[in-house]
Amino acid sequence: MIKYPQIIKSLFLCLILVFSSMIHAEKVSPNHNGINYPIGLKNWRVISTSFRTDNKTQRVILGNSIAIKASRAGKTKPWPKGSILAKLVWKNSQHPKWDAAIVPGEFVHSEVMIKDTEKYKTTGGWGYARWIGLSQQPYGKNKSFAQTCLSCHTKAKDSDFVFTMPAKIP
Amino acid sequence: MIKYPQIIKSLFLCLILVFSSMIHAEKVSPNHNGINYPIGLKNWRVISTSFRTDNKTQRVILGNSIAIKASRAGKTKPWPKGSILAKLVWKNSQHPKWDAAIVPGEFVHSEVMIKDTEKYKTTGGWGYARWIGLSQQPYGKNKSFAQTCLSCHTKAKDSDFVFTMPAKIP
Repeated sequence: MIKYPQIIKSLFLCLILVFSSMIHAEKVSPNHNGINYPIGLKNWRVISTSFRTDNKTQRVILGNSIAIKASRAGKTKPWPKGSILAKLVWKNSQHPKWDAAIVPGEFVHSEVMIKDTEKYKTTGGWGYARWIGLSQQPYGKNKSFAQTCLSCHTKAKDSDFVFTMPAKIP
Repeated sequence: MIKYPQIIKSLFLCLILVFSSMIHAEKVSPNHNGINYPIGLKNWRVISTSFRTDNKTQRVILGNSIAIKASRAGKTKPWPKGSILAKLVWKNSQHPKWDAAIVPGEFVHSEVMIKDTEKYKTTGGWGYARWIGLSQQPYGKNKSFAQTCLSCHTKAKDSDFVFTMPAKIP
């Protein structure tokens, strides 16, 4: 039974943080408000999942290192500056061999929320962005699209405009 | 528009692999078949999600570096030796501010499948393990529990006993 020291864990998390911040190549066009797609996003850790009964979709919610640290410490009211929450959303699909299992079908979109009270003060302290489909086309026609995001997220003002409630993970 | 070289990405993934393999502390009891809980598991990357309409649960499916590499390359028939697939499962819960959103409530269990055709030849080439609840109690009363897993997973024999179909992620 080997117990590795805490320093190794910290080093590991630190390396993820440093390298994640380096790995954001620029293959996808930015949103109309200038927000770039964080390419390392699909390697981020899980905060939660959810599915919606109205539009028949399911999603996973990921976080960058700042968001993961905050969510695991329960310090999300407010989320700290630099937090990025990301959703990957799929249409529901029936599993071919398990009738009761509903699995991800067509990819719908990626979306992010970036916390920066000053930079995004016109949209409640969060910068919003969304890219449609596997080809990751920027959402909306001009930068006013983010007001649409805000109008919905205002329902969650009590939880810093965030609907996601971090899932309990042992 | 800076393009970071592929070597940085490779180094990053390699570091995750090396450190992940080091970080498996021993806080949780092994299953009756001797399989230990991979403590780094909650930091693993996402392969897919799903929800079940029968037992009202939702889950995220994560993979260790070997499994992630295989799933992203589409090389999962069969999954390579050393692949570990992990599920984190929650009871469904109604989002308090969004009627159509079903979010993770009570944590149900973690479970893993470890691919090793020789080591786990009596259970179809996969070692199965499950830990119940946030306290992560080993599942089952003796090592025969894995036959229960196998009897169900045999339905997915055509896909190397794995139900999970990797989600499309851009």
